[in-house]
Amino acid sequence: MSRITLDEFKKVMKESLPFAVMMGAEVIELSEGRATFRLPYHDDWLRPGGTISGPVLMGLADLAMYAVVLSAVGRVELAVTTNLNINFLRKPAPVDVIAEARMLKLGKRLAVGEVELFSEGDPDMVAHVTATYSIPPR
Amino acid sequence: MSRITLDEFKKVMKESLPFAVMMGAEVIELSEGRATFRLPYHDDWLRPGGTISGPVLMGLADLAMYAVVLSAVGRVELAVTTNLNINFLRKPAPVDVIAEARMLKLGKRLAVGEVELFSEGDPDMVAHVTATYSIPPR
Amino acid sequence: MSRITLDEFKKVMKESLPFAVMMGAEVIELSEGRATFRLPYHDDWLRPGGTISGPVLMGLADLAMYAVVLSAVGRVELAVTTNLNINFLRKPAPVDVIAEARMLKLGKRLAVGEVELFSEGDPDMVAHVTATYSIPPR
Amino acid sequence: MSRITLDEFKKVMKESLPFAVMMGAEVIELSEGRATFRLPYHDDWLRPGGTISGPVLMGLADLAMYAVVLSAVGRVELAVTTNLNINFLRKPAPVDVIAEARMLKLGKRLAVGEVELFSEGDPDMVAHVTATYSIPPR
Repeated sequence: MSRITLDEFKKVMKESLPFAVMMGAEVIELSEGRATFRLPYHDDWLRPGGTISGPVLMGLADLAMYAVVLSAVGRVELAVTTNLNINFLRKPAPVDVIAEARMLKLGKRLAVGEVELFSEGDPDMVAHVTATYSIPPR
Repeated sequence: MSRITLDEFKKVMKESLPFAVMMGAEVIELSEGRATFRLPYHDDWLRPGGTISGPVLMGLADLAMYAVVLSAVGRVELAVTTNLNINFLRKPAPVDVIAEARMLKLGKRLAVGEVELFSEGDPDMVAHVTATYSIPPR
Repeated sequence: MSRITLDEFKKVMKESLPFAVMMGAEVIELSEGRATFRLPYHDDWLRPGGTISGPVLMGLADLAMYAVVLSAVGRVELAVTTNLNINFLRKPAPVDVIAEARMLKLGKRLAVGEVELFSEGDPDMVAHVTATYSIPPR
Repeated sequence: MSRITLDEFKKVMKESLPFAVMMGAEVIELSEGRATFRLPYHDDWLRPGGTISGPVLMGLADLAMYAVVLSAVGRVELAVTTNLNINFLRKPAPVDVIAEARMLKLGKRLAVGEVELFSEGDPDMVAHVTATYSIPPR
């Protein structure tokens, strides 16, 4: 079971993650070690080629991984990203983006996870992310 | 000599990169294979711990590398990021962020570069980025 | 269907990949976009802590991804790695290592894939790799 | 000043890193936060295209970064790589490879560094690596 509820995570976003709020990211599902997010499409995310800007995808993936970490360790808000690696695979269509994140390894000090990004309604992955969070001593 | 002027790159940002405009990123210097950017500090970039949000740093680095690519190949706006890897090294202070980007290798099809991020006035790097852009056939 | 047979890939290894031969890596399965490899345990792979050396895991993952690329494009031996990112998740036991590789995206110029590494008989992943290969013009 | 001498590191290699010994890697210089290594050329490192195999470069980089970590924290042999990212930039010539490694950030729990790889006698970088080591509690 997730150690933080969906509503608690929404509250964390609202109170502490203005960038995520500004992007309009929404948490859809949250269970221990797993999270699904949606980023509603917005013209401001476009870049040349009619595709969604890379930083928007990176921001969404980082947020989804943050939720995965909190789902496993509880409301440890000072967990911080130490490494993020993204491979952009396909040009995302100008539609909502779905992020599916999962924990690969939860250690005492580090949590490593994977995030798969999709254009809504299309099974082909648009980007693949791995990310590491550092968990402060508790 | 850069194959795109500072003013031309500002125009590209204004016309085609709404996300960069929204972030308020500013190009400071541009020469062939090198670029310096500044991100004025804004409360909206904060995350828990009073530090600047990771996605903001990733967005700034990606933008600086895009400028480096255009400085070398000209206004090939369809160049796209294929891979970006970031290591977060130190908690950035709540001040402007400076990004210094340089080309490591310009090939026919791929350009690889490195971006160092600093809090203004502090010599200790806050984050280190490597990024690869794919250059479309011309 | 794979565009290179298991026996053809063994021949490529024998003729052209002395490092893989020296490591003793074995291809187990090969289908289009997927490959499984085994690395028989050997004392020479150890490092302090009684665990298997990182470079051995990286070498095995790179080899498995090479097979995945050839399974999709045929015997294009000049395909080369452009980027490899590895996260070490758990201390591998001193037993055989299994690598399961799959294609995430096959483009005209780049192929991106993912490799999961396991200690034989243990479902917990010991390392996770993403890798990009550049495919020469044909 | 380095917290481990050149001779002490050679001893660590000989006693505990059989893979490095097998590769024939040599430490050339070691100071606090910096290390230079040489990998003598050997036909066994070749791969199709007459170039040096990627895993050999990764192994050399990982080793050089390990020396950098020990130069800063002393003989903490259980320090382990948690993440390594490599960009292959140019086809290395069939000559010795030189690795220049430096610390980007030494924290209590993590050390992050950068390794630049060159073909001896050529100023163009052949590969760029960033790596993170986890430092056990002391």
